[in-house]
Amino acid sequence: MTINPIRPTIALDQPGKAHGFLRLPHSRNDSAWGSVMIPLTVIANGDGPTALLTGGNHGDEYEGPIALQQLAWDIDPAEVSGRIIIVPYLNYPAFRAGARVSPIDQINMNRCFPGRADGSPTRKIANYFNDVMVPMADIVLDYHSGGKTLDFLPYAAAHYLENKDQQAACVAAVRAFAAPYSMMMREIDAVGMFDTAVESQGKVFVTTELGGGGTATARSAAIAIRGARNVLRHAGILAGEIETEGPGVMLDMPGEDCFHFATRDGLIHPLADLGDRVHAGQPIARIWPPDRTGTAPVEVPANRDGVIAARHFPGLVQCGDCLAVIADILTD
Amino acid sequence: MTINPIRPTIALDQPGKAHGFLRLPHSRNDSAWGSVMIPLTVIANGDGPTALLTGGNHGDEYEGPIALQQLAWDIDPAEVSGRIIIVPYLNYPAFRAGARVSPIDQINMNRCFPGRADGSPTRKIANYFNDVMVPMADIVLDYHSGGKTLDFLPYAAAHYLENKDQQAACVAAVRAFAAPYSMMMREIDAVGMFDTAVESQGKVFVTTELGGGGTATARSAAIAIRGARNVLRHAGILAGEIETEGPGVMLDMPGEDCFHFATRDGLIHPLADLGDRVHAGQPIARIWPPDRTGTAPVEVPANRDGVIAARHFPGLVQCGDCLAVIADILTD
Amino acid sequence: MTINPIRPTIALDQPGKAHGFLRLPHSRNDSAWGSVMIPLTVIANGDGPTALLTGGNHGDEYEGPIALQQLAWDIDPAEVSGRIIIVPYLNYPAFRAGARVSPIDQINMNRCFPGRADGSPTRKIANYFNDVMVPMADIVLDYHSGGKTLDFLPYAAAHYLENKDQQAACVAAVRAFAAPYSMMMREIDAVGMFDTAVESQGKVFVTTELGGGGTATARSAAIAIRGARNVLRHAGILAGEIETEGPGVMLDMPGEDCFHFATRDGLIHPLADLGDRVHAGQPIARIWPPDRTGTAPVEVPANRDGVIAARHFPGLVQCGDCLAVIADILTD
Amino acid sequence: MTINPIRPTIALDQPGKAHGFLRLPHSRNDSAWGSVMIPLTVIANGDGPTALLTGGNHGDEYEGPIALQQLAWDIDPAEVSGRIIIVPYLNYPAFRAGARVSPIDQINMNRCFPGRADGSPTRKIANYFNDVMVPMADIVLDYHSGGKTLDFLPYAAAHYLENKDQQAACVAAVRAFAAPYSMMMREIDAVGMFDTAVESQGKVFVTTELGGGGTATARSAAIAIRGARNVLRHAGILAGEIETEGPGVMLDMPGEDCFHFATRDGLIHPLADLGDRVHAGQPIARIWPPDRTGTAPVEVPANRDGVIAARHFPGLVQCGDCLAVIADILTD
Amino acid sequence: MTINPIRPTIALDQPGKAHGFLRLPHSRNDSAWGSVMIPLTVIANGDGPTALLTGGNHGDEYEGPIALQQLAWDIDPAEVSGRIIIVPYLNYPAFRAGARVSPIDQINMNRCFPGRADGSPTRKIANYFNDVMVPMADIVLDYHSGGKTLDFLPYAAAHYLENKDQQAACVAAVRAFAAPYSMMMREIDAVGMFDTAVESQGKVFVTTELGGGGTATARSAAIAIRGARNVLRHAGILAGEIETEGPGVMLDMPGEDCFHFATRDGLIHPLADLGDRVHAGQPIARIWPPDRTGTAPVEVPANRDGVIAARHFPGLVQCGDCLAVIADILTD
Amino acid sequence: MTINPIRPTIALDQPGKAHGFLRLPHSRNDSAWGSVMIPLTVIANGDGPTALLTGGNHGDEYEGPIALQQLAWDIDPAEVSGRIIIVPYLNYPAFRAGARVSPIDQINMNRCFPGRADGSPTRKIANYFNDVMVPMADIVLDYHSGGKTLDFLPYAAAHYLENKDQQAACVAAVRAFAAPYSMMMREIDAVGMFDTAVESQGKVFVTTELGGGGTATARSAAIAIRGARNVLRHAGILAGEIETEGPGVMLDMPGEDCFHFATRDGLIHPLADLGDRVHAGQPIARIWPPDRTGTAPVEVPANRDGVIAARHFPGLVQCGDCLAVIADILTD
Repeated sequence: MTINPIRPTIALDQPGKAHGFLRLPHSRNDSAWGSVMIPLTVIANGDGPTALLTGGNHGDEYEGPIALQQLAWDIDPAEVSGRIIIVPYLNYPAFRAGARVSPIDQINMNRCFPGRADGSPTRKIANYFNDVMVPMADIVLDYHSGGKTLDFLPYAAAHYLENKDQQAACVAAVRAFAAPYSMMMREIDAVGMFDTAVESQGKVFVTTELGGGGTATARSAAIAIRGARNVLRHAGILAGEIETEGPGVMLDMPGEDCFHFATRDGLIHPLADLGDRVHAGQPIARIWPPDRTGTAPVEVPANRDGVIAARHFPGLVQCGDCLAVIADILTD
Repeated sequence: MTINPIRPTIALDQPGKAHGFLRLPHSRNDSAWGSVMIPLTVIANGDGPTALLTGGNHGDEYEGPIALQQLAWDIDPAEVSGRIIIVPYLNYPAFRAGARVSPIDQINMNRCFPGRADGSPTRKIANYFNDVMVPMADIVLDYHSGGKTLDFLPYAAAHYLENKDQQAACVAAVRAFAAPYSMMMREIDAVGMFDTAVESQGKVFVTTELGGGGTATARSAAIAIRGARNVLRHAGILAGEIETEGPGVMLDMPGEDCFHFATRDGLIHPLADLGDRVHAGQPIARIWPPDRTGTAPVEVPANRDGVIAARHFPGLVQCGDCLAVIADILTD
Repeated sequence: MTINPIRPTIALDQPGKAHGFLRLPHSRNDSAWGSVMIPLTVIANGDGPTALLTGGNHGDEYEGPIALQQLAWDIDPAEVSGRIIIVPYLNYPAFRAGARVSPIDQINMNRCFPGRADGSPTRKIANYFNDVMVPMADIVLDYHSGGKTLDFLPYAAAHYLENKDQQAACVAAVRAFAAPYSMMMREIDAVGMFDTAVESQGKVFVTTELGGGGTATARSAAIAIRGARNVLRHAGILAGEIETEGPGVMLDMPGEDCFHFATRDGLIHPLADLGDRVHAGQPIARIWPPDRTGTAPVEVPANRDGVIAARHFPGLVQCGDCLAVIADILTD
Repeated sequence: MTINPIRPTIALDQPGKAHGFLRLPHSRNDSAWGSVMIPLTVIANGDGPTALLTGGNHGDEYEGPIALQQLAWDIDPAEVSGRIIIVPYLNYPAFRAGARVSPIDQINMNRCFPGRADGSPTRKIANYFNDVMVPMADIVLDYHSGGKTLDFLPYAAAHYLENKDQQAACVAAVRAFAAPYSMMMREIDAVGMFDTAVESQGKVFVTTELGGGGTATARSAAIAIRGARNVLRHAGILAGEIETEGPGVMLDMPGEDCFHFATRDGLIHPLADLGDRVHAGQPIARIWPPDRTGTAPVEVPANRDGVIAARHFPGLVQCGDCLAVIADILTD
Repeated sequence: MTINPIRPTIALDQPGKAHGFLRLPHSRNDSAWGSVMIPLTVIANGDGPTALLTGGNHGDEYEGPIALQQLAWDIDPAEVSGRIIIVPYLNYPAFRAGARVSPIDQINMNRCFPGRADGSPTRKIANYFNDVMVPMADIVLDYHSGGKTLDFLPYAAAHYLENKDQQAACVAAVRAFAAPYSMMMREIDAVGMFDTAVESQGKVFVTTELGGGGTATARSAAIAIRGARNVLRHAGILAGEIETEGPGVMLDMPGEDCFHFATRDGLIHPLADLGDRVHAGQPIARIWPPDRTGTAPVEVPANRDGVIAARHFPGLVQCGDCLAVIADILTD
Repeated sequence: MTINPIRPTIALDQPGKAHGFLRLPHSRNDSAWGSVMIPLTVIANGDGPTALLTGGNHGDEYEGPIALQQLAWDIDPAEVSGRIIIVPYLNYPAFRAGARVSPIDQINMNRCFPGRADGSPTRKIANYFNDVMVPMADIVLDYHSGGKTLDFLPYAAAHYLENKDQQAACVAAVRAFAAPYSMMMREIDAVGMFDTAVESQGKVFVTTELGGGGTATARSAAIAIRGARNVLRHAGILAGEIETEGPGVMLDMPGEDCFHFATRDGLIHPLADLGDRVHAGQPIARIWPPDRTGTAPVEVPANRDGVIAARHFPGLVQCGDCLAVIADILTD
């Protein structure tokens, strides 16, 4: 059996705060003996659980990296009971490229778990987290946003799980995160997700979608920072009360008809924005032809009542792209 | 002297509504006798001035293309007194690529006027508009937004001009546009701009910045559509009253210190958002290192009091990129 | 076991004519929730066999796509007894790129069967056809031509099979196709071919080579359209007589020495054309050096008597490219 | 004034036969002191005129390179009265890339004459031929074919010129070439052509279109070789009679409506082939949508009576590409 | 089980000297029926062992290819007792690209053994050598140098093996090679190496590092040629004495701390050169920031006493690249 | 007239030491309001001449950048009499890419002087140095090495100039540099060189070639640092004696036959190394075919007696590349 060649440059189990890297040897045309160096911070003190905090699973989503740089800088080991492992840029080559997937192997990290110890770099990283890092953790927070091509209402999310105790623990952690919205998700195609890899090891798991478009704002960055501190408080690793802005809104994506797909290539003309309440049949976008004037646009009606929770971000769209997601509002 | 090879496929001076193209012959590896086909609509009726409406000067800015497709579709020649020439995708190759500059010659159209009749495609288009299209017009509206890498408060703008009568006419048209914000601009480097080319021919000129990030919203698209109709009413080409949301805010960018540049490569952590009022010395962003944790961020303070009117959009920044623009508020 | 994520957007088993897509979710940098949309037509009526008609297995071969668009447009369900499933662009990303192999994963679809449900897009498509579409069919017609780099005499073909009844049924269908030429093929490396995948499921299978060079002609398109109608008549799905131009010529490629390979890089100077009868030892091409004059060309002699049935199409050749194929004439 | 840095490695004015290069210094990332080496043959003997024979003006047109390699190899100086200068690969970088335009500077050589001595490589080559090589010649034969994206009936051609004596001399040389077709051409955009550069120096000039698609055939190569020998005989440089197949057909392209352009992107379905006689209004092609079935094709009717003399070669077409040229038959 | 499609164009077991290719069919966009043609020479005579000599495992290492071209040209079969199989460019596509890894599949050949018969081209070549070529050999010499990104003291090397008899035979062959240095290597990650594949079949194996930087010198080429002749004499295939320059230096790389990694991106300022003796703590390089002046460089101290045996070659370095290797001197 | 948009971020005429940038606005797809930031250090004190020290004219030459970073860091303003302006990375985009020419416009900076204020970035930089920076200087030292594709004996150089006083001043400065070799150069094609631009303004100018291959060594870096200090001492800006290793060797490249060009593509087999003395007719390299074994190599003989002063660095060579330069030894 092949052994995963990734090695940390710092100890993962020493008290105090240490900054280093996960070093992944990567021989390539421009450096025969080169490496991928994934930044890593470990903050440990006394007894308590281990939290694994990850950002940059997709390389063009920025709220997680910002929050985790801030936390790695701010948290004093003396505040901690247990251990916090921080990896702001999980798919580091994708993060440096500002791209969803790695420029090295074009692999979407969040569909390649449990990875392969002898695979291409993205698979090696997935494998190392699956086999080494996640088993160390009691609770895992993996940040996502929409990236360059999607935009989301800011929410933390938990999955419907077969183990209802585990699900309840996850939902409690999601509520602790205290994003403006929370989402219950039923993944249709969960194979290969980091989420699934973590949940199948029985861990408490929180994921998020905190905005998108390949940018972050002062507002979304603040939600991300507050959320991580809240989750660490909820886990007992940091002291203090959960901070919230208010009760938040609980959403659900109950079925396939939440998703609206483009049936033509073209220029999107949005008729409703993120957070707008819409009713079934209401046009939510037009698609104008990209190559001529004087031709009628295609109109895309809402499949159902609800709130626009996600949308295609770039101004151009291709046939088959998801244009928008309309979610149910469970509690307001 | 070389003759510009661009030809319209429809007459530009016939009453009624016609949809066609500006055909630019373009011989290339994948089509020896190919063309660039720039969509064009002409709506003409009776006597009156000519308005030239253009979008897609930069190919990743979408409010203009949306508004101009909608107007080309909606406007009935019977409503018109004069002529409306609509070109939603001025730099058509850039628009199809979803990019600021043309993928063919990598030229920024808005710095290459007056172009060249025997130049590469972007220069040929610029030359054709400079020599043929702009001389036909009394008033020109050229739409811009921030594109994929900048984001703006939504405004229409006029330049400080030497001819104060012309300036007043431009400002009146900008006010007619009725965007939430209006901006007086003093270009430091106006050489090669379409704006300068139009203004130097003595025309009334309106430009805009209506958002950015390489997307449009229902809100920004509505501002763009309303603005063009308002300008056409102002010019007497359409009938009816100017529609507004309220008085709007007049801004000014009086000096070099409005611009804030990144001094390091890294991950932007915004501390203030578009539209936020800030005071001199207040940190408006941090820049975290992209390659490690445990290093202090660089903080970027506001150079002056004002409102954040523009910002770098992508989550990563390079040394020398404009991070933010702080504008003066002239009227509120 | 991973489930193939491809889903049709229309029912495959309803009477009448329906046009839709096979939707393959494809997350990528430019659309996180994007899809590959493979066009599909189903025409069904009453009882009868199912024919699966496919083009675009290689994306630069055009007779199949043309014929299948024409048939999808022309055939009235009332004409049909049974079902016709039409997929003009099997490897849709390759077809849109005008390339033999997919630009997404660089995989040659016709060497990757039975594919993988969790593989890259080309493998997913192959797997879906292997597991879902082919099992629905009684007879499969898969169109090929030479693509951008080969040119062929127009023929339909069957393989020598172990099951002689199946082989006879395939040959009968090939004769029904009524191309100017017919070919008996003994594949040396049949692993991964769609042909093999279909034949191993016991189906009647017809393949073709109808020209090449990355183009089609009025003549080759007409052969392709007539051939499909003939095969559907032969299968009893359409009514009417087989249409032919005459008896056709039966060819055979009995051995390795039919293939002629370039032994130098260079400029091809052809000395015999497609369809020319040649005898062993006759020079069929010269290869001139690409970098200088005054050097003797390499001459390539015919290995055997026969007819030039295929040739390298581009003017330049690399050492190891197949320059020409000389076939035996079984019947004239 | 800048001096063109190109230098021949052999003398251009010595009796006998010499093979060498035009050396163009070209500093680049992969060779700081590299060169572009353009193959060249000079065959000279006794008194007589000078013929300059060029191929590879566009790099994907092969009849010229083949014929010129053959002639450079075959012709014995003893046969010659005067001088033959042979350059089979004029735009050598384009020829090596198998592309119409140079991969170095993306410039179409046949629109950049008279070039520039201090320009990019294609401009330097054009300038050297304009200033040094053409002035040495009495007669110039420049081979063209359709390249990878066009296909032509095989013809030699002359232009309508203001100097009718020069025109008559050119037409006589074209008739001597004895291609199956001859063409009188009235260039609409002759600026920058090699043709124009040669004609403006008062030389006898013959150009050709001998096929296309980025390939050559035994048939088209033979026409090209015979044509050059005939032109050299006509000029008195070689002895012997003109060889012909018959009288040939004289064609004319009298106006803009000879050209037929695609109005949609899509898959071309040809309804008439090269050499077919068509009448005005007859559909010559359909364009099927590239992204779906069940949509009506666009039909392209003939603008006029005549013969299909040229056509778009690749199976896919873009809006604005020239689909076909219909020529008048002057003599049959 | 899939059969590897590679076939030699010459017999591998005939007496005399034959030059040919290993032909690997490779269907691709630019040649549907193309091949990768790997040059091969076999020199056989009488009884005796078989030596397999390979270069170009990495495509940017030149001493092996030079030596093997020279030997394939020079050696007279009459000199030989046994058989010499010479493959100068093992990863031929990488060699032609001047790159470490293949441009076709981006695979590092020396980490993909035993390869796959149905894999991408690099894997197919590895599999063919593993299954067909190595089993024919008694002794294998595989040349390496540093390639474009590393530079080495010139040495031949053997591995520490579990079978001490096999190790002794390898060390004897290494000493016979008579490079200026010899190295004992303990591979930390030997999975997938050609070395391991050969050693696990019980063969005598010699590898080398003979310089680097993507170049060769007269000096390093001479070492490579002499070394192969020496190894063939040692094996009894050629007659004559081992040629040496002197006793040579025996080196060892006993542990992880021999390797020195860059901790910053930047400009390398070397403070010690290849072959320099250094002591622990001595600075061996500075790394200057690539983007500004006025910032202190990072200094890299030697981890241990020894000799600089390898170094990063390009002037720029990335965090995680190996900057230098310091070896122990066993004998001087 | 267009004004060059480059601006320094620090004052160029203030006493003390300041580090900053030349900021060149550069609008592009990935940053609409981006800049090229060229690092700059100014060290000034009291009266005295101005020296301009530049590296990175070609981006893959490292001795200059290393020396200039070291000097910018080390020199105390108190040591200085006059002013030192240091620009380690003149063509900054090329330097960051590790490439000879800029990745933005593919322009060789050292052939584009005097540049253009409205040109592409490389031309703008050249223009700014020509018009602003050079006029400020009394003496200019511009570092070169061979880059990735050439290797040189380490020398400083002066040109034969029409003004013999200026020439003598340059030669004196070259001797002060005290490289192991000095070279008198007669440029054949001096148009567009920085050298020419500086010399034509009457300045004292020193250039160098200090190694190559795209790397630096401890040895070559030390020569570069010492040389700059020596030149500054020579100019009276720093105090102290010139440091030398010995008298040095004076070389000359008197004619075209110093240059040896490859006449074939292939694998270089060097037979003489840098610094070797060779005599006319002696083979200095073989070129082996890159695609087969068993073919005789081409041998390249020395055109003249002398010393190998420069050579092609990469292992592969193309026809027309400069293989080697043989210089005359004036003094030893």
